[in-house]
Amino acid sequence: MTGKLPFEALSVETLATRLATNEALCATIGKGPWKVREVGDGNLNLVFIVEGASGAAVVKQALPYVRLVGDSWPLPLKRSFFEYHALTRQEARAPGSVPAILHFDEGQALIIMEYLAPPHIILRRALIDGRQLPNIARDIGLFMARTLFRGSDLSMQTKDRKADLALFADNVELCGITEDLVFSDPYFDAKLNRHTSPQLDGLVAELRADRDLKVEAQRLKHIFAANAETLLHGDLHSGSIMVTDTETRMIDPEFAFYGPMAFDVGMLLANFWMSFFSQRGHEQNGKRDAMRAYLLGVTNETWAVFRAEFSHLWRTERTGMLYQKSLFEDQGDILASEQALDHVLHQIWSDLLGFAGIEVHRRILGLAHNADFETIEDEDLRASCEAKALKFGRHIAVNRRQILGMDEVNNLAALIERESRI
Amino acid sequence: MTGKLPFEALSVETLATRLATNEALCATIGKGPWKVREVGDGNLNLVFIVEGASGAAVVKQALPYVRLVGDSWPLPLKRSFFEYHALTRQEARAPGSVPAILHFDEGQALIIMEYLAPPHIILRRALIDGRQLPNIARDIGLFMARTLFRGSDLSMQTKDRKADLALFADNVELCGITEDLVFSDPYFDAKLNRHTSPQLDGLVAELRADRDLKVEAQRLKHIFAANAETLLHGDLHSGSIMVTDTETRMIDPEFAFYGPMAFDVGMLLANFWMSFFSQRGHEQNGKRDAMRAYLLGVTNETWAVFRAEFSHLWRTERTGMLYQKSLFEDQGDILASEQALDHVLHQIWSDLLGFAGIEVHRRILGLAHNADFETIEDEDLRASCEAKALKFGRHIAVNRRQILGMDEVNNLAALIERESRI
Repeated sequence: MTGKLPFEALSVETLATRLATNEALCATIGKGPWKVREVGDGNLNLVFIVEGASGAAVVKQALPYVRLVGDSWPLPLKRSFFEYHALTRQEARAPGSVPAILHFDEGQALIIMEYLAPPHIILRRALIDGRQLPNIARDIGLFMARTLFRGSDLSMQTKDRKADLALFADNVELCGITEDLVFSDPYFDAKLNRHTSPQLDGLVAELRADRDLKVEAQRLKHIFAANAETLLHGDLHSGSIMVTDTETRMIDPEFAFYGPMAFDVGMLLANFWMSFFSQRGHEQNGKRDAMRAYLLGVTNETWAVFRAEFSHLWRTERTGMLYQKSLFEDQGDILASEQALDHVLHQIWSDLLGFAGIEVHRRILGLAHNADFETIEDEDLRASCEAKALKFGRHIAVNRRQILGMDEVNNLAALIERESRI
Repeated sequence: MTGKLPFEALSVETLATRLATNEALCATIGKGPWKVREVGDGNLNLVFIVEGASGAAVVKQALPYVRLVGDSWPLPLKRSFFEYHALTRQEARAPGSVPAILHFDEGQALIIMEYLAPPHIILRRALIDGRQLPNIARDIGLFMARTLFRGSDLSMQTKDRKADLALFADNVELCGITEDLVFSDPYFDAKLNRHTSPQLDGLVAELRADRDLKVEAQRLKHIFAANAETLLHGDLHSGSIMVTDTETRMIDPEFAFYGPMAFDVGMLLANFWMSFFSQRGHEQNGKRDAMRAYLLGVTNETWAVFRAEFSHLWRTERTGMLYQKSLFEDQGDILASEQALDHVLHQIWSDLLGFAGIEVHRRILGLAHNADFETIEDEDLRASCEAKALKFGRHIAVNRRQILGMDEVNNLAALIERESRI
């Protein structure tokens, strides 16, 4: 199979034949016969696990439409190209944080990559199961600090960043999904929206009439679309992370593009807070008090690790054109450099709270819900969890410039969780 | 001459021969013999005026280096490509605001355009001469509002904006000039800097040790480089504007790229304030009190016209993906739309003050000075004018988030101008 052939979707039946001569694949898993399974549970793509005599690999292929919706919603195959290029940059900037790539075929929109075998599990699934992963805060905090810092004008030669920005600017359709589904659709009666009804109807109407919230959501969309600060993962939620007790890998960066640093951080943290509010729905086998405490601890630690690593890179790897040492350290003024760092971190903080609040809303009001809430079968119970998350999201989005630190946010989450009258 | 030939700089001697068969040129000015003059007084390019029997035209050609510095500083010819594309977009978005283009030859980095004959004069020259142009505030305010609004996601289809952003992202070298010369070099002992010495030595040392100022300058550089909001002119100072009493045209947009709206506005206003502080140096033939009052009035009116037109476009042409009407007006909530407009204008305001302050500094401390001050022959007098401008620039850059409106800024300018003890 070469990139010259017209695109053709793989299937469990055809995969072994079509990839039989792929050298990278054969070198990793051995020649056939292979066992092939389709395991894609995402919204967009085909994902196969291929097992041979000497190993296994993942074959991920884009489809020319949104899998979740069907071929009525076309989506270009080039997202595979952006995923491939994002993975290579993430590996370079945060070694060991993403699956190894074995092969990329642009024409077939196909990436063959390392199989993260069990006990690897999707982080979202682990959190729903009530598992406390010991390393995720550290691993994800480091990943975000390293990729976001090293992909920006704080580190890169700006000529290289601008060329890369131009490359990823063509990832229009996937940006468009975020622009519509995250920032706008949840706040009006858009066609693809759904929510737990009728339980949430009143609150949903209230949020859609909430002027301050809607203005803030659009300000954040403006920042998302215009502020091309660094190469983002673009879809860094707990469903895009594979974990074991000792390992953490980020996957699925097909939404990658140049955007604001705070977006990845805010979306990720939002998913921890949603997990927090969803725990009440998963207490069939026992209270989840410890899990809730763990989750707030994870948000706290993730942000602390992010700041510590970002600050470390600021002090040791600031080789880009921004905040040049010639203006600060080289003039003997280390405090000027620290002052600038405070400004940059403060901006990330107040923006990430906004992005986090909006991400919570879109997962409950928009098209793409998440399993944390969806797997709560009792609709009243689910709605009660979701309502708390919605109120939390509204609060942090609208008050993002006034919230001082993670303690306040986590105290707010705990208060909302505990107080039935809110 | 076709684009296939290797680049060759035109000269007064060769121009008529080389362009003799250019249809657009012949159609406008008639066939030869022509009269050719080289009039380029800018820092970068060759500019010829070519006159024939039935008219005249301007032939502008880029050189592969910075004219001001010489061939030790190479600069790519493609800046002509960006100038051409910027001019076409500006004409579409603000009809009549730029010279008409007759011909573009990418290979020869050459644009043939409308000749703005006398009494057209460079605005900076007119202001040095003490002329009060009646229309500039309105014309430039409208130009900025229309180009900046219509080149952004407030108006464009985001797919088109992203493609255009990718196109202009390659204008790296000219962005690099701004990034270095405007935002960084003035604040340390960079090689190409110069200032009126020894008169300003003490103040220059003070500014280069001013932590708050340097951090702010770098924050603004960060915004400049990352916030790809709209297609900027990129170099909108009073030397890039041709005027008569009734006409105003913006020229020379070769620095065009996608950046923050506030940059064009701030740079432009800075040039009015510099003209204000330089007037004292041009009082040989009489006091310039009325001219000073006029200039502060111009800043006031320019900003008022900008806001009024931007607000008008916000209410009538908001067809892009940001602040969609489906979230605001379509829900009957016009005040939500007005609230968002206030936020956007407030951001532009506080950023433009920063850009303005920095622009003032670089014109006095950096490489590219301007004639407002340079034509003051008495060095003590020049230094006294420059010192006031430097202090003004520092104040508005560092306090940009606390300054409420144009009245405060202009009162500050008047206070600094009047108070010798400042």
